[in-house]
Amino acid sequence: MLSRSRLTHLRSLRQKKFRNEQKLFVAEGRKIVPELLDSSFHVESVYATVAWQKDFHLKLERADEVVTVNEEELSRISSLVTAQDVLAVARIPAQELTSEKLKKNFSLYLDGVRDPGNMGTLIRIADWFGIQHIICSPDCADVWNPKVVQASMGSLIRVHIHEILPEEFFGKNGMNISQHLPVYGTFLEGKSIYETDFGTKGIIVIGNESSGIRKETESFIQHHITIPSFSLRGEKRAGPESLNAAIAAAITLSEMRRKC
Amino acid sequence: MLSRSRLTHLRSLRQKKFRNEQKLFVAEGRKIVPELLDSSFHVESVYATVAWQKDFHLKLERADEVVTVNEEELSRISSLVTAQDVLAVARIPAQELTSEKLKKNFSLYLDGVRDPGNMGTLIRIADWFGIQHIICSPDCADVWNPKVVQASMGSLIRVHIHEILPEEFFGKNGMNISQHLPVYGTFLEGKSIYETDFGTKGIIVIGNESSGIRKETESFIQHHITIPSFSLRGEKRAGPESLNAAIAAAITLSEMRRKC
Repeated sequence: MLSRSRLTHLRSLRQKKFRNEQKLFVAEGRKIVPELLDSSFHVESVYATVAWQKDFHLKLERADEVVTVNEEELSRISSLVTAQDVLAVARIPAQELTSEKLKKNFSLYLDGVRDPGNMGTLIRIADWFGIQHIICSPDCADVWNPKVVQASMGSLIRVHIHEILPEEFFGKNGMNISQHLPVYGTFLEGKSIYETDFGTKGIIVIGNESSGIRKETESFIQHHITIPSFSLRGEKRAGPESLNAAIAAAITLSEMRRKC
Repeated sequence: MLSRSRLTHLRSLRQKKFRNEQKLFVAEGRKIVPELLDSSFHVESVYATVAWQKDFHLKLERADEVVTVNEEELSRISSLVTAQDVLAVARIPAQELTSEKLKKNFSLYLDGVRDPGNMGTLIRIADWFGIQHIICSPDCADVWNPKVVQASMGSLIRVHIHEILPEEFFGKNGMNISQHLPVYGTFLEGKSIYETDFGTKGIIVIGNESSGIRKETESFIQHHITIPSFSLRGEKRAGPESLNAAIAAAITLSEMRRKC
């Protein structure tokens, strides 16, 4: 049976404040937990049914402790609408980012992406297109939020996530990335992505879902790019106003990878 | 004040059964309602605050009736978490689809897309890339569901939506589309989209979020295409398993439009 203090501990990890204090996050389900146990992440605890433990007993050695729970207990500790048969608590990895690490590939800078579902989808897309580093402004949805962990479907294990203020990442008094790498931003007006030569490295900035890229961040962007709309060709009517942040990122990364 | 019968009527439109019986749907908010009043849709009723009516009085002539409501009443009839200051009831347009209409452009066939948010995003993407017709299998999320209407952000007004069984759309005893047009389906294995010559017309089939395209529908597909993952280049580790349905559609449509 789960003690009251364990329940309190597990539930506290739904809040960013306690995740940051304890450097721990929660991952749930048959897909992500085995991947976590196969990765270099430090897994502190696994809460699982007997049935799940039977299927995955070899992997369980990688966890500090395994707590047997029944379905009713899992539903009490789960953040999901329908609890699955396993939940793990793992350490948030300490990431050190140097400009050296970014020099050979493309990376994403997320400027105020607020929706946890979008964050998860962006991490999944980045992983698909071989992006190793995602840098988030501190006002992005927390990537260790259970909803983001779930929506990223395991990609969070492979992609390194960093939290750095725009001015500290791009600016002269910080990592000075704008001086080292080309910085691209998606806007409603700019050079067509189909005509842009992306080269083999750089930073792609993705803005907030409704307000786009902040003015302050825009000042560090050297290349304004755009995904042309084919809706309005020759027609004088109102067209769609924008694409969602994750969709714009996916199209841009696809076009970039196609060329390099 | 809103009568009980009006309230019952409006709330009944949250259910597909009643929307189908009455051929009516609900759209909410400052973005979509003015677009609806500018379109060829038949708007039966507009429920709006006095403030909204002041701002949009010229457009209001297009509605059969305008009902003045206060914010408390709007929150009672709204399906949104935070009600906006206007809500409209409009007729679901009767669409007739002939293979002739599809012959000059690309169209989307959605095979069991269940999530309303994904449906809305797909409609928005289709609109962005100049797709005029989306054909849905009957088990897709209903496009006139308030969540889809909201997520489509006005694109639902510009794109024509049809509901047709796969065998009736593609098959010999139906519209026989597979004989008239190239049919493409996105799979985890197939020809790279970057190497596919899409030509200028055809049908792109998008499958269900978790199970993909049905076997029965697959039998009508002539071209299996895939979005290559750049995650696994030279690495022997588990990579991401798939991209979400809307993301895959967006990348495919971008690549197709780039070439034509």
